[in-house]
Amino acid sequence: MDKINLVEKLARFSDHWNPRIIAELNGQHVKLVKFQGPFVWHQHEHEDELFYVVRGEFRMEFRDRTVELRAGDLLVVPRGTEHRPVADREVEVLLFEPATTVNTGSAGGDKTVARPEWI
Amino acid sequence: MDKINLVEKLARFSDHWNPRIIAELNGQHVKLVKFQGPFVWHQHEHEDELFYVVRGEFRMEFRDRTVELRAGDLLVVPRGTEHRPVADREVEVLLFEPATTVNTGSAGGDKTVARPEWI
Repeated sequence: MDKINLVEKLARFSDHWNPRIIAELNGQHVKLVKFQGPFVWHQHEHEDELFYVVRGEFRMEFRDRTVELRAGDLLVVPRGTEHRPVADREVEVLLFEPATTVNTGSAGGDKTVARPEWI
Repeated sequence: MDKINLVEKLARFSDHWNPRIIAELNGQHVKLVKFQGPFVWHQHEHEDELFYVVRGEFRMEFRDRTVELRAGDLLVVPRGTEHRPVADREVEVLLFEPATTVNTGSAGGDKTVARPEWI
């Protein structure tokens, strides 16, 4: 039951596409991630996923549209929906999702982080 | 799948201790609430509850300690833990908790909001 400061946690890592867990509740994880460039197209079959922009901006590409997100915006990607986050410059994002969620969903590949680290 | 901006949502209401729902995922609600002064002592028997400070500051009182929180801090209150949020000045807070969570938990009373409104 200690408080968690997002800025302090974000200062602990600098690599991209490697989400870190900062809290757990009700079977869900709260994670922080930094990224730049395009991710892989993927979907999560059984998990809805929340993205909240802490710093910077990125766009969430769907097969039929794109949503532009900036600091203070959040977006819920429903389960089963193909999506691809893309950032022109480094962005810092908070994720809420079930503890079972793997970052690349059903796509796999070399950006997969099967067991994110706690920080 | 539209983006949700916290500042824009917060501008839609001004009353205290009346959480509004802004998103739902995996059986959890994301809510926004404004408050000032002391809440009631209460606990949630089956739900962990996350508080994230968007603007301002408040303190979370527990029976044996107090945690001071400012903008950018988050805190998870585990189920079954008595707590009481107190703000000297108005604070804006994001909550993440199961959709079943009632704000006053097992305490009830006139601050209870049984069915929070979506905004």
